[in-house]
Amino acid sequence: MSPFHRVQEPSAPRIYSFDQPGSVPGTLHIRADAAPPRLILIDYQAQQAIRRQLDQAQDCAPYLDSESVSWIDVQGLGSAETLQQLGQVFQLHSLVLEDVVNVPQRPKVENYGDHLLVVTQMSTLTTVTVAGQPPSRQTAAGAIHPGLEIEQVSFILGKNYLLTVQEEPLHDCFAPVRDRIHYARGMIRQQGADYLLYALIDALIDGFFPILEAYGEEIEALEDEVIEHPTPQTLARIHQIKRDLLTLRRAIWPQRELLSTLTRDNCDQISKEVQLYLRDCYDHAIQVLDMVETYRELAASLMDVYLSAVSNRMNEVMKTLTVISTIFIPLTFIAGIYGMNFNPQASPWNMPELNWYWGYPLVWSAMIAIALSLISFFWLRGWFSDFSRVHRGR
Amino acid sequence: MSPFHRVQEPSAPRIYSFDQPGSVPGTLHIRADAAPPRLILIDYQAQQAIRRQLDQAQDCAPYLDSESVSWIDVQGLGSAETLQQLGQVFQLHSLVLEDVVNVPQRPKVENYGDHLLVVTQMSTLTTVTVAGQPPSRQTAAGAIHPGLEIEQVSFILGKNYLLTVQEEPLHDCFAPVRDRIHYARGMIRQQGADYLLYALIDALIDGFFPILEAYGEEIEALEDEVIEHPTPQTLARIHQIKRDLLTLRRAIWPQRELLSTLTRDNCDQISKEVQLYLRDCYDHAIQVLDMVETYRELAASLMDVYLSAVSNRMNEVMKTLTVISTIFIPLTFIAGIYGMNFNPQASPWNMPELNWYWGYPLVWSAMIAIALSLISFFWLRGWFSDFSRVHRGR
Amino acid sequence: MSPFHRVQEPSAPRIYSFDQPGSVPGTLHIRADAAPPRLILIDYQAQQAIRRQLDQAQDCAPYLDSESVSWIDVQGLGSAETLQQLGQVFQLHSLVLEDVVNVPQRPKVENYGDHLLVVTQMSTLTTVTVAGQPPSRQTAAGAIHPGLEIEQVSFILGKNYLLTVQEEPLHDCFAPVRDRIHYARGMIRQQGADYLLYALIDALIDGFFPILEAYGEEIEALEDEVIEHPTPQTLARIHQIKRDLLTLRRAIWPQRELLSTLTRDNCDQISKEVQLYLRDCYDHAIQVLDMVETYRELAASLMDVYLSAVSNRMNEVMKTLTVISTIFIPLTFIAGIYGMNFNPQASPWNMPELNWYWGYPLVWSAMIAIALSLISFFWLRGWFSDFSRVHRGR
Amino acid sequence: MSPFHRVQEPSAPRIYSFDQPGSVPGTLHIRADAAPPRLILIDYQAQQAIRRQLDQAQDCAPYLDSESVSWIDVQGLGSAETLQQLGQVFQLHSLVLEDVVNVPQRPKVENYGDHLLVVTQMSTLTTVTVAGQPPSRQTAAGAIHPGLEIEQVSFILGKNYLLTVQEEPLHDCFAPVRDRIHYARGMIRQQGADYLLYALIDALIDGFFPILEAYGEEIEALEDEVIEHPTPQTLARIHQIKRDLLTLRRAIWPQRELLSTLTRDNCDQISKEVQLYLRDCYDHAIQVLDMVETYRELAASLMDVYLSAVSNRMNEVMKTLTVISTIFIPLTFIAGIYGMNFNPQASPWNMPELNWYWGYPLVWSAMIAIALSLISFFWLRGWFSDFSRVHRGR
Amino acid sequence: MSPFHRVQEPSAPRIYSFDQPGSVPGTLHIRADAAPPRLILIDYQAQQAIRRQLDQAQDCAPYLDSESVSWIDVQGLGSAETLQQLGQVFQLHSLVLEDVVNVPQRPKVENYGDHLLVVTQMSTLTTVTVAGQPPSRQTAAGAIHPGLEIEQVSFILGKNYLLTVQEEPLHDCFAPVRDRIHYARGMIRQQGADYLLYALIDALIDGFFPILEAYGEEIEALEDEVIEHPTPQTLARIHQIKRDLLTLRRAIWPQRELLSTLTRDNCDQISKEVQLYLRDCYDHAIQVLDMVETYRELAASLMDVYLSAVSNRMNEVMKTLTVISTIFIPLTFIAGIYGMNFNPQASPWNMPELNWYWGYPLVWSAMIAIALSLISFFWLRGWFSDFSRVHRGR
Repeated sequence: MSPFHRVQEPSAPRIYSFDQPGSVPGTLHIRADAAPPRLILIDYQAQQAIRRQLDQAQDCAPYLDSESVSWIDVQGLGSAETLQQLGQVFQLHSLVLEDVVNVPQRPKVENYGDHLLVVTQMSTLTTVTVAGQPPSRQTAAGAIHPGLEIEQVSFILGKNYLLTVQEEPLHDCFAPVRDRIHYARGMIRQQGADYLLYALIDALIDGFFPILEAYGEEIEALEDEVIEHPTPQTLARIHQIKRDLLTLRRAIWPQRELLSTLTRDNCDQISKEVQLYLRDCYDHAIQVLDMVETYRELAASLMDVYLSAVSNRMNEVMKTLTVISTIFIPLTFIAGIYGMNFNPQASPWNMPELNWYWGYPLVWSAMIAIALSLISFFWLRGWFSDFSRVHRGR
Repeated sequence: MSPFHRVQEPSAPRIYSFDQPGSVPGTLHIRADAAPPRLILIDYQAQQAIRRQLDQAQDCAPYLDSESVSWIDVQGLGSAETLQQLGQVFQLHSLVLEDVVNVPQRPKVENYGDHLLVVTQMSTLTTVTVAGQPPSRQTAAGAIHPGLEIEQVSFILGKNYLLTVQEEPLHDCFAPVRDRIHYARGMIRQQGADYLLYALIDALIDGFFPILEAYGEEIEALEDEVIEHPTPQTLARIHQIKRDLLTLRRAIWPQRELLSTLTRDNCDQISKEVQLYLRDCYDHAIQVLDMVETYRELAASLMDVYLSAVSNRMNEVMKTLTVISTIFIPLTFIAGIYGMNFNPQASPWNMPELNWYWGYPLVWSAMIAIALSLISFFWLRGWFSDFSRVHRGR
Repeated sequence: MSPFHRVQEPSAPRIYSFDQPGSVPGTLHIRADAAPPRLILIDYQAQQAIRRQLDQAQDCAPYLDSESVSWIDVQGLGSAETLQQLGQVFQLHSLVLEDVVNVPQRPKVENYGDHLLVVTQMSTLTTVTVAGQPPSRQTAAGAIHPGLEIEQVSFILGKNYLLTVQEEPLHDCFAPVRDRIHYARGMIRQQGADYLLYALIDALIDGFFPILEAYGEEIEALEDEVIEHPTPQTLARIHQIKRDLLTLRRAIWPQRELLSTLTRDNCDQISKEVQLYLRDCYDHAIQVLDMVETYRELAASLMDVYLSAVSNRMNEVMKTLTVISTIFIPLTFIAGIYGMNFNPQASPWNMPELNWYWGYPLVWSAMIAIALSLISFFWLRGWFSDFSRVHRGR
Repeated sequence: MSPFHRVQEPSAPRIYSFDQPGSVPGTLHIRADAAPPRLILIDYQAQQAIRRQLDQAQDCAPYLDSESVSWIDVQGLGSAETLQQLGQVFQLHSLVLEDVVNVPQRPKVENYGDHLLVVTQMSTLTTVTVAGQPPSRQTAAGAIHPGLEIEQVSFILGKNYLLTVQEEPLHDCFAPVRDRIHYARGMIRQQGADYLLYALIDALIDGFFPILEAYGEEIEALEDEVIEHPTPQTLARIHQIKRDLLTLRRAIWPQRELLSTLTRDNCDQISKEVQLYLRDCYDHAIQVLDMVETYRELAASLMDVYLSAVSNRMNEVMKTLTVISTIFIPLTFIAGIYGMNFNPQASPWNMPELNWYWGYPLVWSAMIAIALSLISFFWLRGWFSDFSRVHRGR
Repeated sequence: MSPFHRVQEPSAPRIYSFDQPGSVPGTLHIRADAAPPRLILIDYQAQQAIRRQLDQAQDCAPYLDSESVSWIDVQGLGSAETLQQLGQVFQLHSLVLEDVVNVPQRPKVENYGDHLLVVTQMSTLTTVTVAGQPPSRQTAAGAIHPGLEIEQVSFILGKNYLLTVQEEPLHDCFAPVRDRIHYARGMIRQQGADYLLYALIDALIDGFFPILEAYGEEIEALEDEVIEHPTPQTLARIHQIKRDLLTLRRAIWPQRELLSTLTRDNCDQISKEVQLYLRDCYDHAIQVLDMVETYRELAASLMDVYLSAVSNRMNEVMKTLTVISTIFIPLTFIAGIYGMNFNPQASPWNMPELNWYWGYPLVWSAMIAIALSLISFFWLRGWFSDFSRVHRGR
């Protein structure tokens, strides 16, 4: 399935999941539109790997006792019954089940002695089309822009097993890891469940990079657009990018903490060697954060540039108006003067110019002189410099 | 009672309660409009639960010695006498009573050996109608906006009892917990007073989420409004949201510290198991803070967008003026020229054009040529691009 | 004496006192306008309290040896001689005397073994009238605004005595404490000099609250004003408030540190019980800081709102101009056309319209049609929406 | 080779290198345009120094065992095979090789027991020509502006050897160090591989200073330009500088951390004496950071100044328009009045002025009076003050 | 010599001194315009003090071994030879000499066992005249503004000696200390070299205060100017002040750290008693930082105020234009109507008004009615309120 899909409206920052205030702790919320859960079991050891889709939670029980590594992947949160059965099979604390099911939660790691709960967030790149914007040549950034979807993935790491719970079956960043197990690529088949946890988190963190790349390109396109031909859509896009980067930071920041905890603390479930790999993964999380912060600062600066560019354009418009107006207003006044109907016969003082031999040419000369002096006044002030610039299709 | 009620004016950030400088420590301030205190006792153990409304503070004394958990809930701070009696019954330090009565105080936890004082703040969602704003189609965000009320709730946790003191009886987020005790839902009846403390604080913290949700929706509505048709009311709303978020942060930030202290430190009054639950509550407080900070950044960005959008609109207005003016001003000048009354008979140089056979059509041709060249000049500069955009009901 | 007095000009942030660079440490600076020092001795124990005004510093020596608590309050820094005598009587280090006399210093606490130096800053509310602003109906915030004065108060705590040094005798926040000693209110007469130190610092910190309240009201008034009818005075007021809040923060921030040190460290001079009271005082200092930060953010947001509001008003002015101009400019052009004097007799092409039977009514019809189409154009753009708003007395 | 070269377009902030999400850790990415690696070996001790270009990675193996210091410098990342051979010769962990080859990584130091990995970033100054900007006299900052290139340099320090890996052979800041070895300048020949590491990092950090100098000069030029004659290009330049400084900070900040780690921690590979030198290098990194932060603040302030300067110029343009318009509009109205064709013979009330003896001179007097009073009105408002300023070639 | 001198151009922030990247550590850079070094020796003990100007560095050797305190003050960095001789006499590490000579370095303290290196920065107040600004009455802040020069002063403290190295002989803040030694003021003659170090650093830190005072006054003057009559020069001044305050902060911040290190750590070279004095000096450094931060915030707020004030003035200009234009444009249109030459004889519909008995007075009445209704419209909108304000000489 393609990792890109279309959404019509940019999604607002999702609020964290919360209970009805005062409700009993451990209550599960099943959303009406949640997909029914699919349970996929992969059981492997160095020599072989089995993959099965399970019908119900109890079916995975026999695999848990064996020496081989069992990975139970739950995709979809649509059935409270199945999820509670899972809780019983894996003997999960009611607070653990709540954190896994009531999405989204803030990423965190918690050690419950016999199992380790890791709550993470996965990002998926989507594309948004800004409403009412024609795919015209005006928008250098194009009519299709990057969008963002954040989804919770929970891990429960036990002795020989790893339980993963994903919100939706569609956005699956685990496929390459499944292939590595299936084709025995790398050393994943030689390692335990903790290495599998690492491999999956690593895939998840690395999934942020292509998204950042898309935002980087968008920012670059906006940088050109904002200087060349800022439009109200540009403004909306900058604000949207700031919002998405805020969402990304909110997702990645606690994951950085989480990875720091995993590499620093001694958990029985994670071996020294895998901690070394997780440290590499932690470095990647810091790199993601670094990029997010860089882009945030660039987007903030872009907003300033936008405001200045709009002022600049207004300045240019004002100058055009001023130049035309101030040249013609005095001339029109003069023309108005000699359009007056004072009766020259009533008095020699009444508009004798009208009967002068050179009257009309003199008036023209005066008007041309006034126009030229005003033009040179503006020229000296440098107001024409803008007009001489090359205007590229604006 | 409905948790929503109407207020006419957005409330300003309330200042912390303070003594008349130099007054004796422990002085109680009873506000004139404070509700008279209602004392509600709930005494429960696994098998049964009693609920009684007490007439005076001394009535609760017999319950305190029993093994069952006694919850005394004081609603309203209107009587200094009753409150001082409570202080005597529970043997509270004068500074404790001051913190409980002189609201609001900054949330904090203090350990007095035999009892633990926890001061918290509860938020209630209200709705505000912005003055002078008709419920017209102009305001996408609607004429009813979220408002905020913050109220102090103090907890005094002793061996077998919990004393809670609320400012007002109306906004009661404790009702669901009372029901859980009454109907023995969950394991609350099996647990001690410390679990009750947790259950109440949890209800209080979770009460912030619906409020955040309302603000999130308001921000989203404003995001559309600010790009589509910014008005001065939009500006007032953004500022109001920033103020409310500031108030929320001021309420939740010290509660996060407080919960951190409760889960980290060893208090005799709180068992290990309840600390686990409080840690979950602490996670929720962090989530609230996360959301508040996210919304604060969005609101700040909205203010920038607003300023830019207003500049954009002014730009558009300027362009209209400039286009019309600069086209007609030269034409009017030409018309003025030939409205002059120079006497053609006085000289062959005096406006001979007036007597030309093609004079009038020539002038029209000149004027049309000027108009077309100006229009094409503006076209090349892209000044008409704005007019071709779809204007949705602006 | 009233705690409020008038000053004509808002005072700029006062720079810290400094020596002529390179001068001998311990040099005292006596300002020319400093009030001559008044020495007031209050000597009390549980049974009785004496109050005397001393003529010279040596007079307090006999009281220092007694078991009773001696409070020597020095008001005014106008005499180097008296201050040096005090230094000798109390055996103060030259750096201590310098800190006490050369005001203002940054608040701090320093332990000199046998005595403890506490330097604090007291704030006094003043009122300022903004120059050139008539007390007209334009200013919702009124013509009288809160102002701020900061003054140093130093404490030197010894075994049985407390020496306090105030800059000016006028702003006295210690009067209520004197009354408590005199009338034996509370338990102050039962306690030692350390409790007196607490009582005075508590009065001093609580003195910040009414000031904050005044600023809170001013900000609220400005919030209305800035949306309704922003004027340049509004701008000056916002800047003034930001400056005052900066000054307040500079005063309260080090006092928070100072109180933290007093409650945390073990000083021989301060008993465990008084430390409990000082912790309460520390909470108040944090509350003051909280309020100051909140107001600072509000003031910063107000500045943004101001800028936007001014842009809004300019937009409105521009629209009025544009609407009137763009309607009448084409019409005037048409009128100008038919004001031309082309000779209809010279050619049938020369303005035959002038002789048409329906010429004049046709021109009127054309002009009305043009005006109506322009008006409907503006209507569709929503430019009239602003005019339909209620303008309250602007 | 000259350290300056031309690029046509300012480069956007480069994203950190990342794996295809889910791929096997340790995968090497070889970019198509990467230069083929050149291996240069320098083997030296106090008495002599050898320099050889190696054909393949295995050739350096014999030098590693000797007592002399072996520096293997790899320039270019174009061949996966060669790089994997290097990994085998030096027995590098697969994650190390990944960090060295998949550029750029965030600077860091990692200790792998027998060797130490140091990843750093080198900056190179380039020049950019802003598109479409003629090298006219308008741009005080000139048409050639500083640009920035960041490139990764990795160091692997073993017992007697140092392996350095550079992205490109062109930008070589190591030449002076090679000369110091060749000509035995300073004490480099007497020292071990750790001193060589210091010498190279020192050269790399010092390489930031000339770049900062170029940016400092650019900012200074822009400061003049922004006040004197701001253009849209100025805006683009300020944004570009902010972006470059952000990139610089992103490069230098982790290097500061890295140097702090090297000087603080005990690594077996680095002697106490060399740590002293590294501390000096750490000071330089802090100085670079200091300058970057200073320039960032200046650039942010410049953006504000730009916006204000544009507003100022618009103000000036507006005043010109207003002065001319408001003087001539009333005059033109008066001229229009007496251009009306009311028939004086139809009524004595119809424009009798036209037949007055002094009619025409009276109208002129009235118009001159109006013009003078308007001019003096503007004069009193100070609107002419701007025109009297010296306009230097604007 | 006067501590004030004139410079023509405000100096840009000086970059830290740096080596040619890759050069041998310890290389000395002698600038061409550096003054030749003057060596002044002051050797003192309680009874006597000697002052001599030395010809060469070796001359001070005999004084170093005696029990008396020897202060060698080097003014000017113009001779590499003399400085290297000094390095030999005092046995300085090559990195020490580099830090002392290659100015400026970031202030720091480093302990080399037998001697202590302290690098500090001294500030000098200069005055700048802004180019092209006449000393007119327009600038309330006056035409002379404070400027800033920062200069490095290095201290090397040994057992009985103190070596100080200053960049330039002119700006000497050490003169008062020399006088204190000469005239035996205070207790400096009784103390060791560590007290001398304190006395000099104290003089240096206190030298920041008069500079801050000058900037405080400048900010105050600008506060008035920015509200009353903002000019482009005002903008340039605000930016200049922000730049200078940035430079000041960059100078004082590391000196605060440095003093904190000196008072906290145990250096053999500094006695407990002098540490007490240094703590006082540390307090002063914090006060300087406090003031710098306060002024920085004020300057940032001033920039906002400036922008708003410029918008305000544009608003005022716009209103004038709008009022005049919108009143006269309709009137001119009406006059234009009756200036048309439709032939009344061709048709009874052609402008019969021209022949009406009351035609001309009716037109005048209509025009006056229109003007009055427009004026009252503007009056209701409050657009005249600005004109009624007192304009003080603008």
